[in-house]
Amino acid sequence: MAVAVSTDFDFAAYLEASRQRVEQALDAALGPERPESLREAMRYSLLAGGKRLRPILCLASCELAGGTSALALPTAVALEMIHTMSLIHDDLPAMDNDDLRRGRPTNHKVFGEANAILAGDALLTRAFEMVALRSPGVAPERLLRVLGELSLAAGAPGLVGGQVVDLESEGRQVDLDTLEYIHLHKTGALLQASVLTGALIAGAEDDLLDALRTYSRGIGLAFQIIDDILDLTASSAVLGKTAGKDLAADKTTYPKLLGLEESRRRADVLVRESKEALQPWLAQAGPLVALADYITSRDR
Amino acid sequence: MAVAVSTDFDFAAYLEASRQRVEQALDAALGPERPESLREAMRYSLLAGGKRLRPILCLASCELAGGTSALALPTAVALEMIHTMSLIHDDLPAMDNDDLRRGRPTNHKVFGEANAILAGDALLTRAFEMVALRSPGVAPERLLRVLGELSLAAGAPGLVGGQVVDLESEGRQVDLDTLEYIHLHKTGALLQASVLTGALIAGAEDDLLDALRTYSRGIGLAFQIIDDILDLTASSAVLGKTAGKDLAADKTTYPKLLGLEESRRRADVLVRESKEALQPWLAQAGPLVALADYITSRDR
Repeated sequence: MAVAVSTDFDFAAYLEASRQRVEQALDAALGPERPESLREAMRYSLLAGGKRLRPILCLASCELAGGTSALALPTAVALEMIHTMSLIHDDLPAMDNDDLRRGRPTNHKVFGEANAILAGDALLTRAFEMVALRSPGVAPERLLRVLGELSLAAGAPGLVGGQVVDLESEGRQVDLDTLEYIHLHKTGALLQASVLTGALIAGAEDDLLDALRTYSRGIGLAFQIIDDILDLTASSAVLGKTAGKDLAADKTTYPKLLGLEESRRRADVLVRESKEALQPWLAQAGPLVALADYITSRDR
Repeated sequence: MAVAVSTDFDFAAYLEASRQRVEQALDAALGPERPESLREAMRYSLLAGGKRLRPILCLASCELAGGTSALALPTAVALEMIHTMSLIHDDLPAMDNDDLRRGRPTNHKVFGEANAILAGDALLTRAFEMVALRSPGVAPERLLRVLGELSLAAGAPGLVGGQVVDLESEGRQVDLDTLEYIHLHKTGALLQASVLTGALIAGAEDDLLDALRTYSRGIGLAFQIIDDILDLTASSAVLGKTAGKDLAADKTTYPKLLGLEESRRRADVLVRESKEALQPWLAQAGPLVALADYITSRDR
């Protein structure tokens, strides 16, 4: 059941099984929302497909830390809710003004701006509810730490802070430090929270948590470098969102600062370091190691 | 300015001391936000004054339930953050499109729409962080229940659900049930959470929690009825926001459905019932009883 470690781990099957499990949990999570129009707007974006990387990382990390992944499922759902909320708000006319997301019209295009803002707000609060009220079988002190990680990742110290700096950087050249700040906050923080919360639910010790921080920081940055590369090299049809958007918005990207080849090299180094951090837990780390490769593969 | 219970309680002094305590805690809560522009947008609205009713209710409720109010201070701050976030988002052009709030330009007027949306998002997540990570001395299982109440009050089952129905009702006549739904969600839910969370931090028993639900539901509705009345009868200068707005937006209000006199009578009944619910705890209930009168007074 591992990668570099063993060859009998069927990662494709693992990924698909995990994804289906997450889809079911997401579908079940939005029961009682009222009014119906709000529920529809929340479901439209939450159930719009996607790779479900954050939930899957959370479940895998929980298992690596010796936990039963079922205990992490509500948190996995919460992570996808936060991610979805950030996409809905980022796509708004006042922000990135995007019409297309995951191959479909963006939330505000379908439901209007007010409902899109509110659906995002509702998904964000629902995420905290999932952990606080709908996570049976996990000790309260562990859930509190999970809620702490989620609040940091979603707010000013994470997603929001990254988006603010990203918007401020539009149309201007920024240096590598600023670019990294944006990505570590806008993408990296929630990926890190995905990995950490799974482990926290399983009661992981500090040394494993530290290793998972290194792992998630590395794949988070590598993920973003690849994203920049793909925006430059892939088509809208492949991406499921508008391609060439960074160029059009005159955004600073890794390829722009470092060139395509150096960007690719950096991504490779980060992925290797991420996997190396898990060396002491390699027997259980198969899924996370394979996920590092998958997340940062060229043809995702 | 005291109550049925005792005449030596100086409510005005109590209110002012509580308000100052909350102001200091709010000011201290927003330390490390980055970038600076985000921090400014968050502080602009969070520190814009106001009566701080929700935090004060939370502290008073904690003391009524036998707790030390200092333990409830982070939660009190969280409640004001959620309230502030809802004001920022409600004021947006896509929603109520308000230019004036608490006598000053609204957040998006000063910082732009994108930053206003993001400052709201950041305040909402910071609220959960206050409870999850910055509430020393309170047992984790109590904090979890507090986080649960906050998530319900802020999300689809509370604030957001109320705002969606409110927006859908604009320009149309709604019946009394719908009007009550809007207010119980848009205003009532967070007032109720304010009162319940304070008591939960003190470890209140179910009978007190039930009484506090009755109390907060009553003052929440009465508060809104009075708000409708004031919108009709007071000036912008007194309100610190645009007066006559409900009429201009053709919103259904209590005075419109019931007339001014009947609206006033209903508010009086609700306030009386709210106070009566606290009868068994009357010796400790002075502040909450006085707050019920204050919140629903004609000349606030």
